[in-house]
Amino acid sequence: MTLDLADPIRAGERRALARAITLVESRRADHRKDAEALLADLATDRREAIRIGLSGTPGVGKSSFIEAFGMMLVEAGLKVAVLAVDPSSARSGGSILGDKTRMERLSREPQAFIRPSPSQTQLGGVARRSREAVFLCEAAGYDVVLIETVGVGQSETVVAEMSDLFVLLLAPAGGDELQGVKRGIMEQADLILVNKADGDLKAQATRTCADYSGALRLLRKRPEDPEGFPKAMTVSAMTGANLDDAWFTMQALADWRRSEGHWDTRRAGQARHWFRAEVEAALLAQLDTPGARQQMAELSEAVADGSVLPAAAARDMATFLRKQDAPL
Amino acid sequence: MTLDLADPIRAGERRALARAITLVESRRADHRKDAEALLADLATDRREAIRIGLSGTPGVGKSSFIEAFGMMLVEAGLKVAVLAVDPSSARSGGSILGDKTRMERLSREPQAFIRPSPSQTQLGGVARRSREAVFLCEAAGYDVVLIETVGVGQSETVVAEMSDLFVLLLAPAGGDELQGVKRGIMEQADLILVNKADGDLKAQATRTCADYSGALRLLRKRPEDPEGFPKAMTVSAMTGANLDDAWFTMQALADWRRSEGHWDTRRAGQARHWFRAEVEAALLAQLDTPGARQQMAELSEAVADGSVLPAAAARDMATFLRKQDAPL
Repeated sequence: MTLDLADPIRAGERRALARAITLVESRRADHRKDAEALLADLATDRREAIRIGLSGTPGVGKSSFIEAFGMMLVEAGLKVAVLAVDPSSARSGGSILGDKTRMERLSREPQAFIRPSPSQTQLGGVARRSREAVFLCEAAGYDVVLIETVGVGQSETVVAEMSDLFVLLLAPAGGDELQGVKRGIMEQADLILVNKADGDLKAQATRTCADYSGALRLLRKRPEDPEGFPKAMTVSAMTGANLDDAWFTMQALADWRRSEGHWDTRRAGQARHWFRAEVEAALLAQLDTPGARQQMAELSEAVADGSVLPAAAARDMATFLRKQDAPL
Repeated sequence: MTLDLADPIRAGERRALARAITLVESRRADHRKDAEALLADLATDRREAIRIGLSGTPGVGKSSFIEAFGMMLVEAGLKVAVLAVDPSSARSGGSILGDKTRMERLSREPQAFIRPSPSQTQLGGVARRSREAVFLCEAAGYDVVLIETVGVGQSETVVAEMSDLFVLLLAPAGGDELQGVKRGIMEQADLILVNKADGDLKAQATRTCADYSGALRLLRKRPEDPEGFPKAMTVSAMTGANLDDAWFTMQALADWRRSEGHWDTRRAGQARHWFRAEVEAALLAQLDTPGARQQMAELSEAVADGSVLPAAAARDMATFLRKQDAPL
């Protein structure tokens, strides 16, 4: 039944794409089976977009940037998909992209597709669904997939691990605030864009950009980076200044990685990473059945009151799971 | 056979204790079985030491501190065990405590026991063995177990999770360096000791201590802490200054936690934590057999070249493991 979705997706029908993403987000076992059949069918096409991870905390103007950047791409004849990865969306009562009015023009474009984050609290679950949604967007013929995150906790790493390029969007700031950017995220970024380089903030944005350029020079250069990368630039989502330069820079980096073989190496490495993550999650899911949870709770109490040592209790739990022969 | 170790350990024989720790460190299945039988036998005694986690980077004078602090405790009639938890020891070619000459006096004391870190690269393995070594030291009647780490990567968290009190040893520093101490470790510390408060460095140590006191006040107070904790103090391992105060402070905190019920709650929580960690490690160990490794490698390549998607490959792997019926 759901295989009927494959051809409409190939034809780029947005409703079919939206339904397919809903399918991969479902936790129902029958939905999961259908989802995997659909994904396997589409995998033979091997359509490829440029996957751009985009991180930026609230207040840096991320929605405005995506709106302006996305419109520029659409006007250049490209198809653009925007996916949000936000593990906290379930808690905050809605995705950051739930409010599509913040991307009013882009959301009305036939060549654009915007999808909020799935409402799940577990980052692991969000990660799988997001990866599969990216894949579905590629199958639907999108040229650029923007994967955006607010960068809470580990979500930036998750997004970086499913992107071809990783972009960090920042606001103009005083020199002291530079330290507020986590070192880990700086190391993952291919491109830092200092937004709001317009009006009164322009000079400050330029200074902030210079600060980040300096900081990036101190970080180790990766073998998959050409000379001059990672790079920091100023942009303005409001005036549109330098948005074309930013896109040109992203393309130049992508082209270099493709020609040097780093592109495929990186995608293959990411696929291996996600495979292992899925296997480990499946193994640990054995602890998530009602019977296993009860057994864990009982043994946990015995361990807590000191009558059984952790290693011995773990052995008992392993015996219990083996007898269960629970489906992995 | 190894149950013969139980009574000598109860009698406090150091050679039996050393052999038992070697046994819990062994990876051989028959050794593991013997180790668990021994631990279960000794668990009935419920002897309890005060477990003090101690972290400090090289250069802060950790060995000198342990030597001086340990000697003070021994001279007060207490039995002192020192265990090192250092996941990197295998790489650096020997434990930080391998060189016992740095604790020359303490290592000659009959009331003291010093044990280097097991030479394993995996922190998970080191953690289990260290916890069981702590337990064996308690069974052997030690009053104080010092668990020391150099604080690379996650080792501080591992040590904090097996300690009743967590002490951070630091050297006098300029005000700017305060930011170099990771926030996470500051939040775990019950007591910060600024060492080298002697000679030319005394004034600087006092200033550093004041800086840390200020920083600690900004951190959230935990319900298991009495008024004034976490606390920062100056000490000198060289002159012995304030070592008695430090010990008095540790005892006061321990007494407060015992009387308020936090002591048992904390130990129970740690036991539960380690139980879950052991169960998860056992589940993931299914991937560590030769057959599973080969299957993972084959599926990983199929995923990397794009012919199979991660979720589908993970499902294949789960089927493989179920057929294996591998011992957990």
